[in-house]
Amino acid sequence: MKLLLLSNSTNAGEPYLFWAKREIQAFLEKEPAIALFIPYAAITFSYDEYEAKVKNIFSAFGRHVTSIHRAEDPVRAVEDAEIIVIGGGNTWHLVRKMHDLGLMDPIRRKVLRGTPYISWSAGANVACPTLMTTNDMPIIDPHGFDTLNLIPFQINPHYMDVHPVGFGGETREVRIKEFIEINPDVYVVGLRESTLLKLVNGKLQLVGSRSVRIFKKGETPKNLQVTDDLSFLLAQK
Amino acid sequence: MKLLLLSNSTNAGEPYLFWAKREIQAFLEKEPAIALFIPYAAITFSYDEYEAKVKNIFSAFGRHVTSIHRAEDPVRAVEDAEIIVIGGGNTWHLVRKMHDLGLMDPIRRKVLRGTPYISWSAGANVACPTLMTTNDMPIIDPHGFDTLNLIPFQINPHYMDVHPVGFGGETREVRIKEFIEINPDVYVVGLRESTLLKLVNGKLQLVGSRSVRIFKKGETPKNLQVTDDLSFLLAQK
Repeated sequence: MKLLLLSNSTNAGEPYLFWAKREIQAFLEKEPAIALFIPYAAITFSYDEYEAKVKNIFSAFGRHVTSIHRAEDPVRAVEDAEIIVIGGGNTWHLVRKMHDLGLMDPIRRKVLRGTPYISWSAGANVACPTLMTTNDMPIIDPHGFDTLNLIPFQINPHYMDVHPVGFGGETREVRIKEFIEINPDVYVVGLRESTLLKLVNGKLQLVGSRSVRIFKKGETPKNLQVTDDLSFLLAQK
Repeated sequence: MKLLLLSNSTNAGEPYLFWAKREIQAFLEKEPAIALFIPYAAITFSYDEYEAKVKNIFSAFGRHVTSIHRAEDPVRAVEDAEIIVIGGGNTWHLVRKMHDLGLMDPIRRKVLRGTPYISWSAGANVACPTLMTTNDMPIIDPHGFDTLNLIPFQINPHYMDVHPVGFGGETREVRIKEFIEINPDVYVVGLRESTLLKLVNGKLQLVGSRSVRIFKKGETPKNLQVTDDLSFLLAQK
């Protein structure tokens, strides 16, 4: 399996996907030319616009991107895909469309058979067993919380340590502690911005300039660095 | 119908429910003595602890609080309630328990018949048609997004304008704009901290030191003050 799971698309003040370009390019080095893009996390802009934006980035790597919303038979498009790319936006809407179009199983089968998978934000969330560690607003019933289950742990994208001064709502850490209270067997990886997880040949690596924060019920949350062994996350269950 | 819907329980540095005490007291002035408390939004602390905390506050108003988790027959406890109080915490867990225990319809019927309803944060969210404008992490499948539908619009509690500097995730305003894109007929009220909505005798009022921010598809978001007419929110649908 070959996964590249990015916390976020864009850092403040930078072009789209800029921070991850080198990693995406290296990840795709020996891969084929055609990428299928899943744009369904887009809400306030069109799938055409989203495709154009991503096409523009991937063309710099010599890859051609086509969005699945153009396919007459989306399941067939997945089955024929050489690379699968899932963009960020609203996780709930993305999952709803993936369920309604019957894409979960086909994508999972393809990626388990070796088709490279690149995603960011909501797209990183759907690589997990469920969408339960999303930060997004539930603007639509997803018709089921289950997602691709490519990895046995949960990612919380855009993980942040700061909390607005004087804000009376829950911090991100409190929210994740609520999750592990109800889901005690599941690891949560707080994936800070400008970081990504790469899984190739069964080896899981953190890439980026920041640590990840690991949560599990009964364990003290801890930060792990790029040099730390993350294999325990795959051994789960 | 008599509703008191608070954005938040506590302002930074203040005791629990402190900012709203005077309003709660005035709201309860002519009401009976016994309040039924729904504690199911609590995750990282016990229902007993939550009951004790709320009991302590309400005793200052001469009201006795009992939590529904002590009831052998929770539906019966709702039917017998003189006042209903729903506390904040995790909206998803609260809704799941309310669905599983079959409390939605009984509470709705009671409150429509005039039983006073006081709630904050997650408790304000469940007064809406659905939980869709919660900020909370979906730590559990709620078994349905529908909630009490006491008001025809959605509240976003803890509404905040600030956005952490450099954070690449969605702002609150962007999240709500995604909601109205998918749900174009529904008003969303961004309820800032230290504010509450009071609905008594068909009259909806904003109380507090800040404005509310109103969102609807096709309309420019706007701030409304305590002196503004909010009746259009009830006319919806």
